[in-house]
Amino acid sequence: MASNVKFSTTLGIFGNQSDRWCNSGYKQDRSVDELFEAAGKIQELDGVELFGTWHINENNVEQIKGLVKKYKFGVSTLIVDLFVNPKYGSGSIASFDTKIRKDAISDIKKYMDIAPKLDCSILDIWLGQDGYDYPFQVDYLKAWKNLLDGFTECADHNPKVKLSIEYKIREPRNHLYMADVGKTLALLEKIGRDNLGITMDVGHGFFAYESVAESIALCKFYGNRLFHMHFNDNYGFADDDLMVGAFHMQDYLELLFWLKKIGYKGWFSLDQFPYRDEGIGACRESIKMIKSMQKALDSVDSKEIEKVIAEGDATKSIALIRKIIFKE
Amino acid sequence: MASNVKFSTTLGIFGNQSDRWCNSGYKQDRSVDELFEAAGKIQELDGVELFGTWHINENNVEQIKGLVKKYKFGVSTLIVDLFVNPKYGSGSIASFDTKIRKDAISDIKKYMDIAPKLDCSILDIWLGQDGYDYPFQVDYLKAWKNLLDGFTECADHNPKVKLSIEYKIREPRNHLYMADVGKTLALLEKIGRDNLGITMDVGHGFFAYESVAESIALCKFYGNRLFHMHFNDNYGFADDDLMVGAFHMQDYLELLFWLKKIGYKGWFSLDQFPYRDEGIGACRESIKMIKSMQKALDSVDSKEIEKVIAEGDATKSIALIRKIIFKE
Amino acid sequence: MASNVKFSTTLGIFGNQSDRWCNSGYKQDRSVDELFEAAGKIQELDGVELFGTWHINENNVEQIKGLVKKYKFGVSTLIVDLFVNPKYGSGSIASFDTKIRKDAISDIKKYMDIAPKLDCSILDIWLGQDGYDYPFQVDYLKAWKNLLDGFTECADHNPKVKLSIEYKIREPRNHLYMADVGKTLALLEKIGRDNLGITMDVGHGFFAYESVAESIALCKFYGNRLFHMHFNDNYGFADDDLMVGAFHMQDYLELLFWLKKIGYKGWFSLDQFPYRDEGIGACRESIKMIKSMQKALDSVDSKEIEKVIAEGDATKSIALIRKIIFKE
Amino acid sequence: MASNVKFSTTLGIFGNQSDRWCNSGYKQDRSVDELFEAAGKIQELDGVELFGTWHINENNVEQIKGLVKKYKFGVSTLIVDLFVNPKYGSGSIASFDTKIRKDAISDIKKYMDIAPKLDCSILDIWLGQDGYDYPFQVDYLKAWKNLLDGFTECADHNPKVKLSIEYKIREPRNHLYMADVGKTLALLEKIGRDNLGITMDVGHGFFAYESVAESIALCKFYGNRLFHMHFNDNYGFADDDLMVGAFHMQDYLELLFWLKKIGYKGWFSLDQFPYRDEGIGACRESIKMIKSMQKALDSVDSKEIEKVIAEGDATKSIALIRKIIFKE
Repeated sequence: MASNVKFSTTLGIFGNQSDRWCNSGYKQDRSVDELFEAAGKIQELDGVELFGTWHINENNVEQIKGLVKKYKFGVSTLIVDLFVNPKYGSGSIASFDTKIRKDAISDIKKYMDIAPKLDCSILDIWLGQDGYDYPFQVDYLKAWKNLLDGFTECADHNPKVKLSIEYKIREPRNHLYMADVGKTLALLEKIGRDNLGITMDVGHGFFAYESVAESIALCKFYGNRLFHMHFNDNYGFADDDLMVGAFHMQDYLELLFWLKKIGYKGWFSLDQFPYRDEGIGACRESIKMIKSMQKALDSVDSKEIEKVIAEGDATKSIALIRKIIFKE
Repeated sequence: MASNVKFSTTLGIFGNQSDRWCNSGYKQDRSVDELFEAAGKIQELDGVELFGTWHINENNVEQIKGLVKKYKFGVSTLIVDLFVNPKYGSGSIASFDTKIRKDAISDIKKYMDIAPKLDCSILDIWLGQDGYDYPFQVDYLKAWKNLLDGFTECADHNPKVKLSIEYKIREPRNHLYMADVGKTLALLEKIGRDNLGITMDVGHGFFAYESVAESIALCKFYGNRLFHMHFNDNYGFADDDLMVGAFHMQDYLELLFWLKKIGYKGWFSLDQFPYRDEGIGACRESIKMIKSMQKALDSVDSKEIEKVIAEGDATKSIALIRKIIFKE
Repeated sequence: MASNVKFSTTLGIFGNQSDRWCNSGYKQDRSVDELFEAAGKIQELDGVELFGTWHINENNVEQIKGLVKKYKFGVSTLIVDLFVNPKYGSGSIASFDTKIRKDAISDIKKYMDIAPKLDCSILDIWLGQDGYDYPFQVDYLKAWKNLLDGFTECADHNPKVKLSIEYKIREPRNHLYMADVGKTLALLEKIGRDNLGITMDVGHGFFAYESVAESIALCKFYGNRLFHMHFNDNYGFADDDLMVGAFHMQDYLELLFWLKKIGYKGWFSLDQFPYRDEGIGACRESIKMIKSMQKALDSVDSKEIEKVIAEGDATKSIALIRKIIFKE
Repeated sequence: MASNVKFSTTLGIFGNQSDRWCNSGYKQDRSVDELFEAAGKIQELDGVELFGTWHINENNVEQIKGLVKKYKFGVSTLIVDLFVNPKYGSGSIASFDTKIRKDAISDIKKYMDIAPKLDCSILDIWLGQDGYDYPFQVDYLKAWKNLLDGFTECADHNPKVKLSIEYKIREPRNHLYMADVGKTLALLEKIGRDNLGITMDVGHGFFAYESVAESIALCKFYGNRLFHMHFNDNYGFADDDLMVGAFHMQDYLELLFWLKKIGYKGWFSLDQFPYRDEGIGACRESIKMIKSMQKALDSVDSKEIEKVIAEGDATKSIALIRKIIFKE
């Protein structure tokens, strides 16, 4: 299994991370060249995710193509900036401001045009500012109508580019519309376009109290909706974007099993915020952990795992987990 | 607004509530006759929810009809027992045991046949045991296929009886399939039957970190899917089934506004567990609280509320809340 | 390390577990003799916890002594019933009803007298009903005064019997006074009696968003306050009382390390509710999992672990976790 | 009651708030002069909290004295920067780096010397970076020893200046040592200095699943430990720092009652992050909301409230809440 996996990471992992307190960032800023250079030091890495406009924009496509080629990377996804630009601070596609909504749709289309130039077929769409903070603050029906219309228009712009929606239950807004796997799938089911799917950010799944294994299965149940994977970890109460292996172990093993079971062929991409930790090490350790997990999982015959699942006896599930992890 | 509202309650509120510790119950048991007698003492009450098999079953329909008539109640819903009978302890409609799954479907159909005899058009379907507790315990794809097939078969048994699915994120299982508004609506969208909809248990919404106002709007967005309302309160971390007014106030005001806005004409039904508190008082206080909330809400012109919502300025949302609650 | 560990379990794990829905219990009831017989089948088990009054009371001490002897068990703790008897449904030691408060203190003293007869030196005191559900329901100052006075009086009844307070943040009450490690230690610090300490229920720690390793260290920091350990697992949002190995893995490894580091010599006792699972298997699997964890932990030199901790570099923490678990 | 209350706010409410996404901030930066000018527009405001080093430092004391005098403000607290400066990014007083720990202690002493010059007697000490993110990352015993030593040394520097510790369960670190009211009080009880106390940030209490009313009572129970109040609101899952009135209503009424009951005479200070909302409005609305709450509370006789609390009947608690809020 492991041999087929392509690892990728958001480029930002190698940079400087700030938060609402330490807004200078806990480390030093790095240029795009330096970020690529750092990524290039990690042998296990096959590709990168580029954030527009920080890393990629209309004017630097050739430069980025050069960097990608230099380090023999693929570009797993482009992430459209609908949440860093203060213009989108109160919403993008779902905004009640027609101008802003149009700009957001226009920005998505722009990156749909850029992506093929980088041999990238997936845009990651995270609507981190589309939501609300207070009761009596928004008209939910209008917001959802905007989401439906906006996604439909973008999807139809180029059916060959996949728009991969990354849901999250909250943060930075107190409630996000694209909150969980159910709400996202319900909307995709209603829209009915094949190039609309889901980025399963594992940490966002944990944060929404989902079994990520079940969420992955649901993406299959509602068509082939699983376009992309984001790996990181957290304590279940926030999107901590920690290294893989910090907290969830059994859930990770189960979700890796389900990725294989549904035939997921996409990227294994990291999305982490190592505020206080060195980025190259944080990236490398997560990849190593995922590889160790996969190896442990592969050490037990899939049929044996399927048999335990089919029986539904929890004492056997625990015994299986012990066998996978501890070989005992 | 308040004048049109029909209040109902689960009959069990007047009985004895137990938990995993105090399994004798904190109070005294009461017969069905006594439960009706208790309900009859509450002037504000227009109807009751009956739980099968505790309160209603094939053999006592006439007796119950008599009691309902005696106290001039309507029957808001019948709740099918898919979670008290130990037979369903590891699942009902989604069970991997064909016999149990068939029994569950058969039980639902049975109560679909009973309901019209009591002038009741809604069955409340809460799949509290359909879920899982451990990783590697279930095949999610098979479970969801069972849910889809089971609901479709039941819905087609009699299109005139509404099946109202009550979702909940967890408890008693650690994960329930019918977990939140999104997952439930996605399934209903896929099945496409008009008599499948949602019981919005307000406490379940809070427990799943939903804005219940948004969830109500979503039931409208995906068709007329809001069939029934369950009122209670909790602290957001469990299904405490407390009296209304314990914790959420602003959210309650907003959801009452949205019930009016989407034209909800159904019951306002209580679903509470007053373990240590006297049931008649617990029922009466919740109804009084809802009425006070409605009156406060009605004291501000709907257009003014709509204007605040349209502006999206949170400082005005807070000012509106203060005006609704404190008249200041 | 593993060789010195004494494993114990609450006897109830082998019985029938009910909840607020399935109040008949999901399985069959078993007599005390049958519970002991079940426990006797588990070779790894060195002792049992007895719950008064279900398993132990004034009148059956000799019978229980016989059963304990027959199966060559030790009695790790006696659990005083301050939460099953409906009399204590609204509080025990902290109750505002003088009669109930006196009864609770009297019950504790009674079991302090029984314990030595069973060669047991620890009473587990869980105040599951001492708390509150609603705002404006209790006078917190009076409640805490009652706790302080009650614990002091009990502690002074016999300084040779340890009273081990088991804290928990909520359930069955919406708030418990003895909620977390901090509140409990603050009270013990104020009372200043050596025979007052803490039962660290690992699941209760997770539920209160504690790092249990830190909580164990704090019990040491405030004197030798760690009297007893309860093992089980949950998803962090409720006291699920699952088998060990369900969810937390890394946290378990760290807390086992800290138990060794602070020199904990007490019991490793299980406190689980396998509602739907067979009790003997649930007990055995948890013990096996703990043993596998310990073995994995012992495979890495303590000095190496201490070195990683001393450096504080999180990438090395993750590498260490991978080494402990996967030997890579 | 309201007439005696002094309202204050952190000056930052009028500035630009950034987060980990929008690190430019959602609004425009403002100079200290402009921040004071904004504060000066709010008639209800009696004082400000100053953050060192942004607003106050060794070199601008006279300038700040002038501004304070110009707007007739009091200075409620100085907040020592132990969390914005990247130097303290991995810890301050509890740091394992001796140099950093000494700097932190030195910085606190420095502001203890500055405070009296501004007629300010309270330093707010929030140890937002003192904690940990991963298992096996820190030595908890050493960290707590550092906390104990550090607070003791600072407290003894000048017994007339109060050090008011603001606890918080997490963020920015995944676990903070000074996490909740219990851990903080346990440490203060052990140190035993009269000028060490607590800043009760209401949102931090909600975030830690505390009844803030009980936490306030506990500050009294363990001596006169309540030095300062921070007001804001959140949804219970994060430190959202929203306007008062967003979510918690009943809890706020109860905590305001308890502030009066224990005789709290300190400041009512706001600590909010109105990222997307205009700061003057956000400040003014929170103060208005608190005043409306107090007025509602004062409309019911304290003896009546005490009577309900003494009875412990939750149906009466709900009736009381309805009376306070809705006058019905």
